[in-house]
Amino acid sequence: MSQRQKLRMGLIGGGGNGFIGRVHVTAATLDREADLVAGAFSSDPEKSRASATIFDVNEERAYGCYQELFAKERLLPRSDRIDFVSIATPNHTHADIATQALRSGFHVICDKPMTTELSEAASLVQLVAESKKVFVLSHNYSGYPMVRQAREMIEDGEIGDILAVRVSYQQGWMHGMKPDSIPERGAWKSDPIKNGRAGSLGDVGTHAFHLLRFVTQLRPETLMCTMKSFSNHHQLDDYGHALIQLENQAIGSVTWSQVSHGKLNDLTLQVDGTKGALSWKQEKPNQLIVGRLGRPTMTYDRHPRADYLKSSAQLACRLPAGHPEAFFEAFANVYRDAYVKMRVSEQSEAEAEGSRGSLCPTVSDGFEGVLFTHLCLDSQANRSTWIPWSC
Amino acid sequence: MSQRQKLRMGLIGGGGNGFIGRVHVTAATLDREADLVAGAFSSDPEKSRASATIFDVNEERAYGCYQELFAKERLLPRSDRIDFVSIATPNHTHADIATQALRSGFHVICDKPMTTELSEAASLVQLVAESKKVFVLSHNYSGYPMVRQAREMIEDGEIGDILAVRVSYQQGWMHGMKPDSIPERGAWKSDPIKNGRAGSLGDVGTHAFHLLRFVTQLRPETLMCTMKSFSNHHQLDDYGHALIQLENQAIGSVTWSQVSHGKLNDLTLQVDGTKGALSWKQEKPNQLIVGRLGRPTMTYDRHPRADYLKSSAQLACRLPAGHPEAFFEAFANVYRDAYVKMRVSEQSEAEAEGSRGSLCPTVSDGFEGVLFTHLCLDSQANRSTWIPWSC
Amino acid sequence: MSQRQKLRMGLIGGGGNGFIGRVHVTAATLDREADLVAGAFSSDPEKSRASATIFDVNEERAYGCYQELFAKERLLPRSDRIDFVSIATPNHTHADIATQALRSGFHVICDKPMTTELSEAASLVQLVAESKKVFVLSHNYSGYPMVRQAREMIEDGEIGDILAVRVSYQQGWMHGMKPDSIPERGAWKSDPIKNGRAGSLGDVGTHAFHLLRFVTQLRPETLMCTMKSFSNHHQLDDYGHALIQLENQAIGSVTWSQVSHGKLNDLTLQVDGTKGALSWKQEKPNQLIVGRLGRPTMTYDRHPRADYLKSSAQLACRLPAGHPEAFFEAFANVYRDAYVKMRVSEQSEAEAEGSRGSLCPTVSDGFEGVLFTHLCLDSQANRSTWIPWSC
Amino acid sequence: MSQRQKLRMGLIGGGGNGFIGRVHVTAATLDREADLVAGAFSSDPEKSRASATIFDVNEERAYGCYQELFAKERLLPRSDRIDFVSIATPNHTHADIATQALRSGFHVICDKPMTTELSEAASLVQLVAESKKVFVLSHNYSGYPMVRQAREMIEDGEIGDILAVRVSYQQGWMHGMKPDSIPERGAWKSDPIKNGRAGSLGDVGTHAFHLLRFVTQLRPETLMCTMKSFSNHHQLDDYGHALIQLENQAIGSVTWSQVSHGKLNDLTLQVDGTKGALSWKQEKPNQLIVGRLGRPTMTYDRHPRADYLKSSAQLACRLPAGHPEAFFEAFANVYRDAYVKMRVSEQSEAEAEGSRGSLCPTVSDGFEGVLFTHLCLDSQANRSTWIPWSC
Repeated sequence: MSQRQKLRMGLIGGGGNGFIGRVHVTAATLDREADLVAGAFSSDPEKSRASATIFDVNEERAYGCYQELFAKERLLPRSDRIDFVSIATPNHTHADIATQALRSGFHVICDKPMTTELSEAASLVQLVAESKKVFVLSHNYSGYPMVRQAREMIEDGEIGDILAVRVSYQQGWMHGMKPDSIPERGAWKSDPIKNGRAGSLGDVGTHAFHLLRFVTQLRPETLMCTMKSFSNHHQLDDYGHALIQLENQAIGSVTWSQVSHGKLNDLTLQVDGTKGALSWKQEKPNQLIVGRLGRPTMTYDRHPRADYLKSSAQLACRLPAGHPEAFFEAFANVYRDAYVKMRVSEQSEAEAEGSRGSLCPTVSDGFEGVLFTHLCLDSQANRSTWIPWSC
Repeated sequence: MSQRQKLRMGLIGGGGNGFIGRVHVTAATLDREADLVAGAFSSDPEKSRASATIFDVNEERAYGCYQELFAKERLLPRSDRIDFVSIATPNHTHADIATQALRSGFHVICDKPMTTELSEAASLVQLVAESKKVFVLSHNYSGYPMVRQAREMIEDGEIGDILAVRVSYQQGWMHGMKPDSIPERGAWKSDPIKNGRAGSLGDVGTHAFHLLRFVTQLRPETLMCTMKSFSNHHQLDDYGHALIQLENQAIGSVTWSQVSHGKLNDLTLQVDGTKGALSWKQEKPNQLIVGRLGRPTMTYDRHPRADYLKSSAQLACRLPAGHPEAFFEAFANVYRDAYVKMRVSEQSEAEAEGSRGSLCPTVSDGFEGVLFTHLCLDSQANRSTWIPWSC
Repeated sequence: MSQRQKLRMGLIGGGGNGFIGRVHVTAATLDREADLVAGAFSSDPEKSRASATIFDVNEERAYGCYQELFAKERLLPRSDRIDFVSIATPNHTHADIATQALRSGFHVICDKPMTTELSEAASLVQLVAESKKVFVLSHNYSGYPMVRQAREMIEDGEIGDILAVRVSYQQGWMHGMKPDSIPERGAWKSDPIKNGRAGSLGDVGTHAFHLLRFVTQLRPETLMCTMKSFSNHHQLDDYGHALIQLENQAIGSVTWSQVSHGKLNDLTLQVDGTKGALSWKQEKPNQLIVGRLGRPTMTYDRHPRADYLKSSAQLACRLPAGHPEAFFEAFANVYRDAYVKMRVSEQSEAEAEGSRGSLCPTVSDGFEGVLFTHLCLDSQANRSTWIPWSC
Repeated sequence: MSQRQKLRMGLIGGGGNGFIGRVHVTAATLDREADLVAGAFSSDPEKSRASATIFDVNEERAYGCYQELFAKERLLPRSDRIDFVSIATPNHTHADIATQALRSGFHVICDKPMTTELSEAASLVQLVAESKKVFVLSHNYSGYPMVRQAREMIEDGEIGDILAVRVSYQQGWMHGMKPDSIPERGAWKSDPIKNGRAGSLGDVGTHAFHLLRFVTQLRPETLMCTMKSFSNHHQLDDYGHALIQLENQAIGSVTWSQVSHGKLNDLTLQVDGTKGALSWKQEKPNQLIVGRLGRPTMTYDRHPRADYLKSSAQLACRLPAGHPEAFFEAFANVYRDAYVKMRVSEQSEAEAEGSRGSLCPTVSDGFEGVLFTHLCLDSQANRSTWIPWSC
């Protein structure tokens, strides 16, 4: 919250039955640092324009398509036109929209997976480097204070050298998609063209992989993957395991599922180090469990001022301990960090000191996520053998 | 979210080190149905005006005191002036501020306890009735979807006749207040003048009592209370038990503490009925536990569309199940309900059909809360005997 | 386990549908320090004798009634006859059986409540003092390692001065007793003659009260009680609250219920001190939660060797941490302590040094439990007023 | 418990600092169906004989070695000599001891892993088939009532076709073993000769694998394994992952660790089916969690009579719900099942109808466990490739 002028947001996609559009808007505006002022809310121009009222934007700025959005917003005076777009469209459109956004001079907040093709991801990396624009990937789970606590504890050596890390992301809703009915949400997620060839791997597996990377900062060396498609109505994976040999002899394990009955959004993290171990669950996000041999198990609670918490965790809090924060606030932390980078970027036309240490996921993370899905698909195609981590 | 014009909010208090001002603003604007446009943020005129930047309001509308706020806002055109004020000041000022707000034609969202004196509470009840203005008390815990689920299940007879209800609200931070240092938050909470004679009873006990009332809708008949002041630096209660004989032979128990080491914001509810039992914990707000003899324990998860959830719970959700919602969203639900009433009020100058069934706490709930604290103090003063529920 | 001769046990009662007889036998013999060799298993002589095979005792020592048991066992050579009896009969018979047992020269393990009448309890206290025999009450929950940990931590001042203690014991099975059907277990528990006038208060409330006393070692000064009988088929209380003013300005709260749907055997303990707070749940008995302001919540796990555990807790363990122990082992700890006293008693005909520090509940605890129920009944009868803790 | 003569037990090993000897004895005698009457408690004849008093057996039957035990017990009259031996020695001795026991005409309860070499395991399978003696492997976790509930629910199709199963067994104590000090327990577990080449894989991984097999009854088709040895003082694995392609297209995952700080004995199970999902944790053994899409999560509590529990679960209970049972009782259930088989075996010299449906782990399970470790080692040695499930 500040006297600084609010940033202006454009939303692309997010206008259907899904919840992700409203999540972006709520998260982006939670701290009142930004306003939603424009959008191309649907691939159907009629629907997109009709969404103006739903999203409470001026009808003139509810565009029929993203191309129109970029074209017209560029013509507005700098003090009026959007500063950034948030891309909440099906996966296969991310690359083109992000490319046009950057070329049109707008910062980008992009949903994951960043692209469906690895070549697109590589192009984006280059484009972002050239553009001097901020590009942030919405790996929102990295915005949770206790996830940041885990990262900083590890960075500071508090659990010693990492031996192993296990991440798992399980949901159950895929069972509800009937072959002859329109699924409640995410029909495009079952379409290999729109979704990409990585099914649940792309939808939830990449979040889990990013969590592993974000928290440990260890680079993969080789991986193997075995996946299943248990669905009656599509061929995309809905369950899988990947094992990853990480640098420094550490081993990683990534499990994903969208066919686990009763699981809602069960993203979990466990890290074993030589001095201690950490575990965290997205559905109980305000607690981080810290284990040390021979000592009582410690539950670290989210707390804006507790001595036992790292500064990155404290800064990510909006409320006193015991007043739970959750999904929106974590997502808003990613936006908040992005805004710091955007404001710095405006000043210097380059990423400046002020945004060093920013924790928000970048185009590199996006590239890695796409690489992860491609290598998993390659391993699976190659009888689930181990393959090196390289493009 | 809608095309309707946003409501305009004025904030009174909330400018200090405390978190409650920002909570009000974040909750009030979460769904982008309202904007903060004015405020009297501190009892110190200098500080109040200096807070304009912090709260991102126009300097001209950061007033030196609430009297000035009401006086000047009234003179603004209807399309500019505030629609409502949120009162986040020390308890002893609520009555006067609310009275002036209502007389100035503004709706009111008021922190609890509503007043420190019972006579003030009674006056407010009358004033609200005459004013045709909306008056809502910020018993924010009633905004949690699973609390509303509990209420509606009980209303629909799903747990049968209520036998017993136990509420408890425990914190531990009062141990941190040293006699010779400025407490981290809420110094005025230890001052009987500013806080009223009910210490933790007023601060947390009233929330617990409201939760009991909100969920069961049972009227008290008699109560007894025994309280303690374990503090070295003030005389106000920091621990207490009240037992309440409720209508229909049910019995209620209210426990409060701010001296329970390690407890952060541990508000809990347990209801026993002839057919089933419910339990809920504020620090795990997305779950309601339902017990029935001879059947597996059921965990109801917050879910915007699950068949097992009542409409009041579904409507109070913003996110899919497993994507946890928490404190801000619950608080925002109280605001959202208040806005429905405000908009109806504007149309008809009276509470209209559209706002029937509104769940937001009213001036009557505020009166009851003040009565509860006064009867607890009376019982305690009278050797913890039972006294009837009457003014 | 040792080379010492095993103690010989006689069981009185325990032969019906209930589980308590087998619990006594399993607990008494768990460490192979004792054998069941005789019994009067039922008030029906036929049934009692028929139980010989069920309990695997010699037919000649399955007596028709306890009078016969005492008479005949006394005549056996000292090396054959029983050393002690365990009394698992309806409450109203405890006094007479225990009296005869002590007079016949046998040690006694007696179920709670010790007697139904206070005068009987007082007589037993005197008789035990005169008899030099060991008398232990089966407050089995005091046998849990983590309950003993709580007691010893408090004794050592680790949570400072006690401010408040809350115990609660909730079950739900009373809903299952139909007026026109034989209840699954404990029909006599609804009969005021056989059970005594204290219903659930006697059945579970006394366990909770003992837990409070065992852990805090604080003496009651005054108490008040309000109880309910929600049953359609009997007049005994099935729900209640007692508040207790304890010495040193501490306050205690005891809640009991057998009408809480879905609750199985939910005995819980919470203690607030000036330096820390403890909490424990019988259904998760291997953990003790320790809270301290500003520090992470600590979970102490049962562990035979952990540095963070007191010797009384370590000694009460039979298995490594993580290999859960439960109800039988806790009950067996009470027996094990009783055996230490019995063996000492045999040597010196008086309680010797070796059994100092024994943690097993005594006839004094039994008397206190009966006094507690009587004062609760008195308070309730006297409009739930406060009454002093005295006979 | 019955009038039948008690079975007579001989214990081999179990005399050192470890806890496993006493666990066997306590579990074997918990229901008073057996007595420990003989033993060869240590590989050191002096120590073995000295253990007579610790285990409370007659000095004459505390033998200097197992060879002596078998030789001398065979010469005793049938009514005196042992019926079975329990083998609680280091892994590399199991094969020889079991072989001699069977050849001497004794039933066998053997610790896992059954042997260190696959050829030994195969020989034992054949020998057991020829011997008509009962051979039971102490996969004690299969004795938990709620594990049996899971198995029977799956068998009855209550969760539909199994898609995936994940088991994990994590401990942390291996961090405590210093290179220059004697480890607290299980020094031989770090010695490849005594332990076999499978480190934690054999110690805990085989338990997890058996749990997977016991509950799902699905046969493995292929597997891959990647393991680590993070230890400074030995070369055996202390961490690993195995993935298993099971019949019917199901996929299994086995994770094991003894280097996870703060984990005590964290064995967990998760099964995903087409109709529902199950999860269970050894450290909270009295609960089984049942998930079904769109329905509240159900917690099934251990209960001897609840309608929602299968007969195998009900029969495995000794106590009412809410009175927790734990490790000893589960272990005792394996013994209880073994005794049924032994008694039948005595009658008919062959496994008779009465023991059909016995749930206790057999020599086949033992063989499978050894095969599992060997295939894991083979996969690891072969660059963690997939290999078929065959000898």
